[in-house]
Amino acid sequence: MSVYEGPIQDLIEELGRLPGVGPKSAQRLAFHLLQVDIADAERLADAIRAIKQKVQFCRRCFNVSELEECRICRDARRDPTVLCVVEEPRDVLAIEKTAEFRGRYHVLGGAISPIDGVGPDQLRVRELVGRIGAEDIAEVVLATNPNIEGEATASYLSKLLKSMELRVSRIASGLPVGGDLEYADEITLGRAFAGRRAL
Amino acid sequence: MSVYEGPIQDLIEELGRLPGVGPKSAQRLAFHLLQVDIADAERLADAIRAIKQKVQFCRRCFNVSELEECRICRDARRDPTVLCVVEEPRDVLAIEKTAEFRGRYHVLGGAISPIDGVGPDQLRVRELVGRIGAEDIAEVVLATNPNIEGEATASYLSKLLKSMELRVSRIASGLPVGGDLEYADEITLGRAFAGRRAL
Repeated sequence: MSVYEGPIQDLIEELGRLPGVGPKSAQRLAFHLLQVDIADAERLADAIRAIKQKVQFCRRCFNVSELEECRICRDARRDPTVLCVVEEPRDVLAIEKTAEFRGRYHVLGGAISPIDGVGPDQLRVRELVGRIGAEDIAEVVLATNPNIEGEATASYLSKLLKSMELRVSRIASGLPVGGDLEYADEITLGRAFAGRRAL
Repeated sequence: MSVYEGPIQDLIEELGRLPGVGPKSAQRLAFHLLQVDIADAERLADAIRAIKQKVQFCRRCFNVSELEECRICRDARRDPTVLCVVEEPRDVLAIEKTAEFRGRYHVLGGAISPIDGVGPDQLRVRELVGRIGAEDIAEVVLATNPNIEGEATASYLSKLLKSMELRVSRIASGLPVGGDLEYADEITLGRAFAGRRAL
C-alpha cells in the first residue's frame, strides 16, 4: 500500500532500483531530495544525464573516458610496455590511488563466470590479445579480483598468454595491512603463508 | 586524488551528498548508472526533477501533496475530529501502513531540539492550535518519535493543549512485537512495565 502520490512514489521506485538501496533507504533519499534546495536536486538530475551523454569508453583500454582515449592512455609519462588487466573501470581508480603502477590498463568488462553466462567471448579478451600483438607489451599484471571469478579469469588469461613473449604476473593475496591474524579467514592466511617473502 | 574525468566525478560528488551515501557507495552507484540503459537513467533524473516541480505541502496538514490539499485531508471517509500529530511526512506513511488510524494528520516539520535551534516557533505549532480552534477537533494523538526530541515535543504540546476542550493522548512505548525481553534496553523495558495493561 502506498499513500504517497505520483511523483514521490515514482522517485522512491526509481531510487529503489539502485544497487544496495532498499525500500526504506529509497524513501529516506526521496524525502531528503524533497527538502533540499531545488538547485541541489537539479544538479543531481543533471549529473545523471551528463554521465550518460558525455561518458564513453576508451577505445584502447575500455576505461571510462570523456574523449576517444582516456586520460591514462593519453598520458605520455605512463609506461606503454606494462599492462594491468582489471575487471571494471572502478578497479582502475582503486589501483591509481595506490600510485604503485605507472603502466597502462586493460579493462575486461567483468570476469569469467559460467553461472552468469560470462565466458572469455563476453569479455574484452580478444582486444587484450590484439593489444599485446600491436603495442609491444613486455609485462601483463593480472589484477582481477581475488575471488572465484577473478581467479578463474586470471588463470585463463595466464594460460592464454603463456605462449607469448612476455612476463605475466598476478597481484599478491595475503593479510590486509592493519588486519589481525586472529580474524583472518583460513584461505587468506593460507595465501599469506604460500606467498611469504624472504627478508 | 581522482582519476575520473568530469561527469563521473561530478555524479560521484552529487550522490555523495545524499544522506547515508558515503564515497564508496557514491562510486558504486555512479558506475551502476553508467552501465544501465539510458532510459533508466533518464527516468531517475526525471523523477528527481518531478518531485521538486510537482510536489507541494498540503495547506491544511503539511503532508506532501500534489494538490493544495493532500489525499488524506480530501478523503471524506476520514474522521475530521481526530488529529494525529507527527514530525515528518514520512511518519504519515508509517502510520497509514498500520491501518489503525482513521483520522487526519498534522505534520510539525520536525521536533523541538534546542541544540539545533529548533523551538516551537520553527515548527507548525501555531497552525496546529489554529486548526484545533477552527476544525472542531475532539482528540489529538501525539505521535512524535519516542526519542529525546520527540518526547520533549509531545510534552510541550500536551501542556499547551491542556487548557483546550479535547483529549490528548500519546502513542504507547514498550517492547516491539517479535522482540526479545532479554535484548530490550532498560528504558524500553521500563516503559513497557509503566504502560502495562490489565487483561
